[in-house]
Amino acid sequence: MSFHDLLQADAARVQARLDAALAGLDDVPVVQAMRYAVQGGKRLRAFLVMESARLHGVGPEASVSAAAAVEALHAYSLIHDDMPCMDDDDLRRGLPTVHVKWDEATAVLAGDALQTLAFELLCDPALGAAERRLALVAGLARASGAQGMVLGQALDIAAETAPAPLTLPEITRLQAGKTGALICFSAEAGALMAGADPAPLRAYATAMGLAFQIADDILDVTGDEAATGKRVGKDADAGKATFVSHLGLEGARARASELVQQAENALSPYGDRAAALIEAARFVISRQS
Amino acid sequence: MSFHDLLQADAARVQARLDAALAGLDDVPVVQAMRYAVQGGKRLRAFLVMESARLHGVGPEASVSAAAAVEALHAYSLIHDDMPCMDDDDLRRGLPTVHVKWDEATAVLAGDALQTLAFELLCDPALGAAERRLALVAGLARASGAQGMVLGQALDIAAETAPAPLTLPEITRLQAGKTGALICFSAEAGALMAGADPAPLRAYATAMGLAFQIADDILDVTGDEAATGKRVGKDADAGKATFVSHLGLEGARARASELVQQAENALSPYGDRAAALIEAARFVISRQS
Repeated sequence: MSFHDLLQADAARVQARLDAALAGLDDVPVVQAMRYAVQGGKRLRAFLVMESARLHGVGPEASVSAAAAVEALHAYSLIHDDMPCMDDDDLRRGLPTVHVKWDEATAVLAGDALQTLAFELLCDPALGAAERRLALVAGLARASGAQGMVLGQALDIAAETAPAPLTLPEITRLQAGKTGALICFSAEAGALMAGADPAPLRAYATAMGLAFQIADDILDVTGDEAATGKRVGKDADAGKATFVSHLGLEGARARASELVQQAENALSPYGDRAAALIEAARFVISRQS
Repeated sequence: MSFHDLLQADAARVQARLDAALAGLDDVPVVQAMRYAVQGGKRLRAFLVMESARLHGVGPEASVSAAAAVEALHAYSLIHDDMPCMDDDDLRRGLPTVHVKWDEATAVLAGDALQTLAFELLCDPALGAAERRLALVAGLARASGAQGMVLGQALDIAAETAPAPLTLPEITRLQAGKTGALICFSAEAGALMAGADPAPLRAYATAMGLAFQIADDILDVTGDEAATGKRVGKDADAGKATFVSHLGLEGARARASELVQQAENALSPYGDRAAALIEAARFVISRQS
C-alpha cells in the first residue's frame, strides 16, 4: 500500500478505537467535546505509530491503541493551546474550537480527560507484554510533559513577551518540544512495542518533526484558511520570529528539504521496508494543510 | 506510630520524591508553578497510598512514587479547578492560586504537566513488577478521567446552570467522581502494588471519601479562612445544593459519623493492623482544614 492509502486506513482504525474508548461514557458536554475534538486531522502521528510498528512486525490490531493514545494526547494539546489565555484560536480543522463551541471550562476539562484517556489506552493488553506497555507510558509521559511538549508551549508563550525575537537555535529548541517530542515518540513507539532499538526512528522523526514545523511556518505565510482549516498569517501579524522570518521563504523551503533528506538517510538500516515512512517525510513538506 | 506521625512522615517522603522529580527541569514559570503547587496540603491521599501499601507488606521506599503520583494528580486538579472559568478561587492552602500568582496560561500548562508527571511517576521501577505498575497506571487513569474525577467536576459545573438544585443522590454521585474516585484509588493502590484483593480498601475509601466531602461542606459553613487556607461560605453564597443544605448541619454530621463507622467496618479483615487507616477516617470528619 502507498503512504496515502496507509494513512487513510490507519486513520479509520484509530477513529474506530477512539470512538470505542469514548462510547459508554456519560453524555455530558465534556464528553461530547472530547468526541468532537478527536475527529479529523491528518492523523500523521497515528500513521507513524502504526507504520513503525509494522516495520517491526507488529500489526495494526496490536498497535492501534498506541496510535489512538497519541492522537488523544495531541487532541488534548490542541484544545488547551487554542484557549483564549494561550493562542486564542477560534478555528481548528475547519470547525469552531472547543471553547468557542462550548466554553472555557469544558475546554479545560475535555483536554484534561483526553490526556488521561491517552495513558489509559496504553494499558490495553493488545499492545503486548506489561514491560512494553510501560515503556510506552514512560515514553509518552517524557514526550508530553515539562521536558517535552508542555515545555515547548511554555517557551512559546514566554517568547510573546520576550524583549527580543527568538534566535534560530531558540526556535529550534522550542519546536523540538512543542511538536517534535510527540512526533518522535510516535515514530519510536513501534520499536518500543517490539523491544527493538528506537535510535534510527528517533533520528528520522527528529529531522522530520523539524521539517514539519518549518512547513507549518511556511503554510502560515502561503496557505489559505479553506485548505488549512485554521487561521493563517497569525505569526506575521504578531511579529513572531519563525523559521520563515529568519530564513526567508526560499531558505525555509531549502532547510526543510535538507531535513527530509536527513530523515530518509536515518532509515537506511530498514532498506525498502521504510518506503512509506520516507513518503511520509516528503508529504510533510508538500502538504497544503 | 500514630496516624498523625505517619501522616507527617509520609508527607515528608512524598515532598522529597516530588522535589526530586521536578529537579533538573528547565526553570521556566510553568515549572516554578508546578513546584509551588505541589507544596503543602494535608497529604491524606499520599498517606492512604503508603499505609495501604504497608498493610500489604510494601514499604515506603517502594510505595512513595505512587503516593507522589496521586499528589501530583491532585495538585493538577486543584490548579485547573481554581481557574476563573471553573471555581474562580484566589486562595489555596493559604497562598494565592497559580493563575493569580502567575497567569492563566501558566495555570493550564502547569496543571497539564503535573498530570503527565503523575503517570511518569508510576513508571518508577521501585514500585515493583511491570504488571503491577501498569495496574496502577490503569487505576489512576480510570479514577481521574471522564468516568471519575473529571466527570465529577463536569457535573459540578453543569449544576451551576441547572434549573433546580441537585438532589442528594445527584450530589452523592457528583462527589463520588470529584473527590471520591481519587481517594478510592489511593486506598486501593497498596493492594494493587501487592497483587492483593482491593475490595475491602475500596469499601473503606468509598465511605470515607463521602464522609470527607460532607466534612468539606460543613467546613464551608463553619470553618474560617485562616484555618482552611481557602475561601469559605462560597457554596451558600452561590445558593448551591450541598450535603448541609439537604441534611442540615446536625444531619450532615450524623451522616458523616455513620460513614466513618462503615469505613471502619470495611477494614475488619485486617484487624488491628488497620488502626492508622481507621484513625484517618475519624480525622477526616474532625479536621478544621
